[in-house]
Amino acid sequence: MSTTASARVPQEERTRVMRQRLMEATVELLVEKGFSGTTTTLVSERAGVSRGAQLHHFPTKNDLVVAAVSHLTEKRGAELARAAARLPKGRNRTEAVVEMLGEHFASPVFTAALELWVAARTDAALLEAVAPLEHRVGRETHRLTVQLLDVDESKPGVRELVQATLDLVRGLGLANTLGDDARRRRGILTQWARTLDAALTTSTTKEST
Amino acid sequence: MSTTASARVPQEERTRVMRQRLMEATVELLVEKGFSGTTTTLVSERAGVSRGAQLHHFPTKNDLVVAAVSHLTEKRGAELARAAARLPKGRNRTEAVVEMLGEHFASPVFTAALELWVAARTDAALLEAVAPLEHRVGRETHRLTVQLLDVDESKPGVRELVQATLDLVRGLGLANTLGDDARRRRGILTQWARTLDAALTTSTTKEST
Repeated sequence: MSTTASARVPQEERTRVMRQRLMEATVELLVEKGFSGTTTTLVSERAGVSRGAQLHHFPTKNDLVVAAVSHLTEKRGAELARAAARLPKGRNRTEAVVEMLGEHFASPVFTAALELWVAARTDAALLEAVAPLEHRVGRETHRLTVQLLDVDESKPGVRELVQATLDLVRGLGLANTLGDDARRRRGILTQWARTLDAALTTSTTKEST
Repeated sequence: MSTTASARVPQEERTRVMRQRLMEATVELLVEKGFSGTTTTLVSERAGVSRGAQLHHFPTKNDLVVAAVSHLTEKRGAELARAAARLPKGRNRTEAVVEMLGEHFASPVFTAALELWVAARTDAALLEAVAPLEHRVGRETHRLTVQLLDVDESKPGVRELVQATLDLVRGLGLANTLGDDARRRRGILTQWARTLDAALTTSTTKEST
């Protein structure tokens, strides 16, 4: 290994760590102070990164927030995949899947994403970066849900029931940001899991009628 | 009628109209520019009311926004009641109820409320005013939905299915603010109405088993 190569590796690693610290500070601040309260000054302070270094990596607040969205997206994906791996098989599978999604959409990761969605609604430059990411995450979450529920989307109504499940947990996540409680959410999701099981069975048996 | 009384009535009416113009301008600006883009200067310009008169009625942005939330609440209630009166009876009632709720949560009124909810999440003074109102609106919407669906909440699972329906339309409303389309929403709600009808029938017949 040449001297140049061995010197470059630690530098790349330092840069990677610094960028990650900046993005995680951004996500934390989005949760704590909202989009408008998240300033680049607060981010550099929270991350312990100099203003100069921060401006080098992310010249504007939008650059920082867009990078944080990507980071957030990966974090959301990894969180869901970890939770999915712990799910039980068998009879209570649907309830476990639905509860896992409910918890995911009540997490700080959802809150940070909500701040971005709402800010992007009235900020064209931000929307351009957030919308494609959000569509991609939406598709991946849908695909994961179909796989976890082990359902066949070619059957009539199944696709809509999966989408309804995801829109339901999104609505519960939004209510949760204003201080809703986990008990209410659990009651709703338990009942929805029962209803979903019954509806999916009907969809499946419909074929033979 | 004394001269004093007849002079007071037009003055009261002028004040009422001015306050209403200020609150409606606030709601419009929340939809167009978001919470942080809604400034008191823009509101007085939009409403065509002098800064002095505006400051007399609403000394701070929070005063203005809190009054606009109350105004919004009444507007939401009146909108829903009007839509409810136009609903068909009979077989397709559930689908019509669910679609009406879906349209309501995709309207500009929902968007303005969303801006307030999200801002209130990280603004304690605003939260204090928004949370009780939101709970009241939530209870009223729930009561209206139970009445429109003509269901009995003492039956097991019925209350949770009504709540799930409202959380679903809230989730669809949130997706709609990022440019979701009405066609997707309609497909989901049609399937949801079928599922809800089947589940509510099961809940009702469960009593006799």
